[in-house]
Amino acid sequence: MLINKLAIIGVGLIGGSLARALRSKKECEKVVGFGRSRDNLKKAVELNVIDEFSEDIGRVVKNADVIVLATPLASYESLFEAMRDSLSNDVIITDVGSVKGQVVEAARKTLGDILPRFVPGHPIAGTEQSGVGASFAELFDAHRVILTPLPETNVHAINLITQMWEVTGAEVVHLDVEHHDAVLAATSHLPHLLAYSLVDCLASMQDRSEIFKFAAGGFADFSRIASSHPQMWHDICFSNRKQLLATLEIFSEHLDEVKKAIETEDSEALLTIFTRAKQQRDQFTDQRTQRNDSPE
Amino acid sequence: MLINKLAIIGVGLIGGSLARALRSKKECEKVVGFGRSRDNLKKAVELNVIDEFSEDIGRVVKNADVIVLATPLASYESLFEAMRDSLSNDVIITDVGSVKGQVVEAARKTLGDILPRFVPGHPIAGTEQSGVGASFAELFDAHRVILTPLPETNVHAINLITQMWEVTGAEVVHLDVEHHDAVLAATSHLPHLLAYSLVDCLASMQDRSEIFKFAAGGFADFSRIASSHPQMWHDICFSNRKQLLATLEIFSEHLDEVKKAIETEDSEALLTIFTRAKQQRDQFTDQRTQRNDSPE
Repeated sequence: MLINKLAIIGVGLIGGSLARALRSKKECEKVVGFGRSRDNLKKAVELNVIDEFSEDIGRVVKNADVIVLATPLASYESLFEAMRDSLSNDVIITDVGSVKGQVVEAARKTLGDILPRFVPGHPIAGTEQSGVGASFAELFDAHRVILTPLPETNVHAINLITQMWEVTGAEVVHLDVEHHDAVLAATSHLPHLLAYSLVDCLASMQDRSEIFKFAAGGFADFSRIASSHPQMWHDICFSNRKQLLATLEIFSEHLDEVKKAIETEDSEALLTIFTRAKQQRDQFTDQRTQRNDSPE
Repeated sequence: MLINKLAIIGVGLIGGSLARALRSKKECEKVVGFGRSRDNLKKAVELNVIDEFSEDIGRVVKNADVIVLATPLASYESLFEAMRDSLSNDVIITDVGSVKGQVVEAARKTLGDILPRFVPGHPIAGTEQSGVGASFAELFDAHRVILTPLPETNVHAINLITQMWEVTGAEVVHLDVEHHDAVLAATSHLPHLLAYSLVDCLASMQDRSEIFKFAAGGFADFSRIASSHPQMWHDICFSNRKQLLATLEIFSEHLDEVKKAIETEDSEALLTIFTRAKQQRDQFTDQRTQRNDSPE
């Protein structure tokens, strides 16, 4: 068995799905949960996602082999501080945060000697749902998990966290912290920001009830991610502020190009952009199909 | 039987799916196709979507009871002109174009006496695929079809086209031309434009291979519509230029608000926008679920 005591800090969609996957593969003896919502934690016990929970984080992390942080990013620093004095000597800590720069900063500031046993991680999987009720054991199957180890990170710790994710069916890859945050700003954070902005824009319109009435599948797919957890995405936007604003700047230039082509009726320019985008998108679909990715 | 001879001008995803639906319900005796691609038309015959085709539009529309235009918008005016002299006295013409203002303009300019027998229409259904190979009889089932009849449109013509769409399982609703184009600019044309712009933006980035490698389901759904037919969407953008640019302007204001909240670290403003958008998006999901809409 890979893990004796697993502490899940934040038993939501991601934390809950990880616990379910490890339990279903019998790679985890005991799972203890911590979180802000007592109701959610009770539900997690009822659903057999965790064995028990406590509102005392010290009790939750005590004697844990592995601690997984799966809470909104803004809570990391205070959680690291709150658990620090209760950690066992050989504990390994990891997280699932969507932004790595700020997480590493918080870890460096608070973890001290334990820093080499912290493995920053980010599973590229999720749905627009939140809470333990939405969790399922297969969430990570055939998906990628990015680890962003630091120069000082312990090799044993990296290996154990790698094994843990491989149990869930995920493929583990490494990126450096800054590169991770730049790539995710482009592929995940910016699309979320655009989807939220579009839905908010449509909702502000006078004939909004008709607008939503006649919205079809294209809109439904495009805007699905605007149903994501507002607090979580608020935290992500602030945590990855620099990279996100830089990426938004580049996007705005591309959008302006499209706008200009329409304004000036530059048929060739517009068709060139659309054709180029379609080719790239089709290629992306082909690659996903080849990887036999499950939809997430 | 509702229709003896049906002429499909443009046997692609929409035209092909309509023919399939009417044939499968035995509400159509004979289907004749017209289009630019001989290969596509041959395939349509092989797939039993149409009975025959001709490259002579006069022959295709001759003695047709119903003619359905399902070609890119820019072709409408010349097609109306090319078919005009071959139309039977009691023919009814409809179309499936995504923009109605320009279509009505083209019809007014070219159809003369026949104008009252033209019923402008727009099925709110589709996929990012194109061509007759992607067509299927159930495409319109549980979807809405918007008709935008003119003051002079013949009631008998409206009734027949309404019956035709109801055979496919669609629900027919009426909007006026301008309202249709404003609503669709918001729910369909702008999202397509944003998806094309985002994919084009990502493709321009230095580490684009990694960007697409780590893109997940959120990005996949958001950008699916960027795989749509470039020429078709080029035509839609120009046909609905005024409304689309006005809607883009409003969207840009909302995006700037989000950007400003991130820049100035205005936590409350960002959370308010995200929360408001999520509520609207969740409500949209609930309404779709209630309608028991099939995904498209």
